Amino acid sequence: MVSRIPFLQKEKGYAANDEHPMNLRDLATPALTIDLDALDRNLARMEQYSRKHSLALRPHTKTHKTPELARMQIERGAVGLTVAKVGEAEVMAAAGFDNILVAFPILGHQNLRRLATVARERRILVSLDNETAAQELSRAAIEAGATIEVLAEFDAGLRRCGVEPGAELVQLARTIEKLPRLRFRGLMTYPGCIWGSEEERRREAQNVFGRVQTALEACRKSGLAIEIVSGGSTPSAGFSHQLGFTEIRPGSYVYNDINTFYQGVCRLEDCAARVITTVVSTAVPGRAVIDAGSKTLSSDLTNSGAAGGYGCIVEAPDATIIRLNEEHGYVDTGRSEHQFKVGEVLTVIPNHVCTCVNLHDEVFLLRNEQLQGTWRVAARGKIR
Amino acid sequence: MVSRIPFLQKEKGYAANDEHPMNLRDLATPALTIDLDALDRNLARMEQYSRKHSLALRPHTKTHKTPELARMQIERGAVGLTVAKVGEAEVMAAAGFDNILVAFPILGHQNLRRLATVARERRILVSLDNETAAQELSRAAIEAGATIEVLAEFDAGLRRCGVEPGAELVQLARTIEKLPRLRFRGLMTYPGCIWGSEEERRREAQNVFGRVQTALEACRKSGLAIEIVSGGSTPSAGFSHQLGFTEIRPGSYVYNDINTFYQGVCRLEDCAARVITTVVSTAVPGRAVIDAGSKTLSSDLTNSGAAGGYGCIVEAPDATIIRLNEEHGYVDTGRSEHQFKVGEVLTVIPNHVCTCVNLHDEVFLLRNEQLQGTWRVAARGKIR
Repeated sequence: MVSRIPFLQKEKGYAANDEHPMNLRDLATPALTIDLDALDRNLARMEQYSRKHSLALRPHTKTHKTPELARMQIERGAVGLTVAKVGEAEVMAAAGFDNILVAFPILGHQNLRRLATVARERRILVSLDNETAAQELSRAAIEAGATIEVLAEFDAGLRRCGVEPGAELVQLARTIEKLPRLRFRGLMTYPGCIWGSEEERRREAQNVFGRVQTALEACRKSGLAIEIVSGGSTPSAGFSHQLGFTEIRPGSYVYNDINTFYQGVCRLEDCAARVITTVVSTAVPGRAVIDAGSKTLSSDLTNSGAAGGYGCIVEAPDATIIRLNEEHGYVDTGRSEHQFKVGEVLTVIPNHVCTCVNLHDEVFLLRNEQLQGTWRVAARGKIR
Repeated sequence: MVSRIPFLQKEKGYAANDEHPMNLRDLATPALTIDLDALDRNLARMEQYSRKHSLALRPHTKTHKTPELARMQIERGAVGLTVAKVGEAEVMAAAGFDNILVAFPILGHQNLRRLATVARERRILVSLDNETAAQELSRAAIEAGATIEVLAEFDAGLRRCGVEPGAELVQLARTIEKLPRLRFRGLMTYPGCIWGSEEERRREAQNVFGRVQTALEACRKSGLAIEIVSGGSTPSAGFSHQLGFTEIRPGSYVYNDINTFYQGVCRLEDCAARVITTVVSTAVPGRAVIDAGSKTLSSDLTNSGAAGGYGCIVEAPDATIIRLNEEHGYVDTGRSEHQFKVGEVLTVIPNHVCTCVNLHDEVFLLRNEQLQGTWRVAARGKIR
């Protein structure tokens, strides 16, 4: 299996060697680890799903922010990549990737100039939902002598970005078509409203389907050529082939987390990203304190809110991480059968892996709990 | 004023020059900015307070994670620095600082070895609340040939770390005293329970005072020499001279945030750290979307919970940031008189500045909205 990821060899930045691989329990804590076997299964599952339904897979790299993993996604059949910000596009372009969708309405002179510079060397697509963003993108493309492909964003029901999928959408597409150095390629939406129980997700998926059909029908009537209909997310992945998309942009599926587990789209053993952490205090009765706080796990909660805690302790799932300070996790041990001991190493599956990964400079790669190497989270912190 | 911070000259990493300083509205967004005049006032206020009450000031650098600002704190009379993790201590030691308190019970061979290495060159103090941590610290100090000073941590009422302030505390102090290469120096507690309205903070402060007195009395009776009693936080700063501490460790006061504002310990104009962000979409009625999400602001809420929103928009305080995705902030514009426009630059005061700063590689320094330079957040992400 290691032969499939040869770059691991040159990426080794740790003290162990091939004869004496380091065990996960020997790592300094807190540390974010990736189980490569689980990652492999997650990649294979999404590849099979998208192939089976002839959906182009353009994974969102915001989850891992790591060129090495993007490479694995391309090797597993992805047609290109998705990013959210220009800085992420720059990292992926510098690592040699092409055909990158910036699924964010980029604005501001400096951001646009940088994006257009990338577009001189790479195929860049941008989604946007307003005329101002389209005009400024066109201006930047003209200045850079680049051509940028554009998807018109409509709202599938989340009420975040996107115009209404009717006359407004057609008007936006027409505006894009007319602007110099832009090429209108199709539509984009983020079906983030597909979330919750399977029942809730199924119901929301029907609404999304209706709005995608409205969008497509309006474009067809207006004679607009729609090559791409980009949608998808990890929680909606099982429905994506029924919604009228030609492309999907799932992100979290590579690592999974408590959110995707609660939504039934993965098993606990498919949660590839886990924070290893040490119990540093048990001085207060009913309490254990771990060395992973909000600067390690992020403060993101699950749908269950604060009662659900800040991640799941694999060795003691009956204990709850009830609160985080920056470097301290407060574990309520009252209802747990686990005997917490100072110095003990525990494993926490984060609630939301995307914000968690963004806190870490590197991740530690494991197979059977043995360290195989590290990846630098090269696009971490690229917020603009 | 600029002459007080001469390092700004060599830190300039931006396109502007002295004749044409860049205006805040020209910065690429999102970006974390620091108002140097507000910072100056915040530093002066804490310096005056601690001088007036003869409290040693050992500011917690977890808020800013920036050697340049630590230097300003030392120049303003701080006796040393506080950090939470070994990596932060390494950054501050490498920048030339001495007399660093690691206010965290460090555990694990690698972390302890690194800490003891720093302690060979620098005066290092560590707080801890258990025998295991003390023994392992002693072992690491022996191996490195270093001496490490130790504070015994007791619980002032927060129920996080710390033993009970009576017999348990005395026993812990005796253990530390006996261990080779450790020097027992006194007591430490984190009065994080002093939080909320002034009434709540006053009541909690009385409890803390009682527990500090219990701790001191137990130590006195046992003949333990207590040189340092370390406490303090920004919300409790106004009470710190009444609690029996000899040293305080406030952190947030340098930048302040919505949390410290709500607690009445600063004015809104004392919030020196502000995220500038661009409105990128107004396509959905009643909604504006900004380019600052949880990877820019952090997901930390205030005491008011989700209803309080994810930060305060200075230009439109009547609008609420009701939700964050990673790169999107959802602004509910329904009850605001402000007319949100795509491309408009807004200013957001974060709820919790410490987790916000930790998401940024650099901060942009302003005076009268003109860029003066940048600081690298050198200890960002140093979680171990």
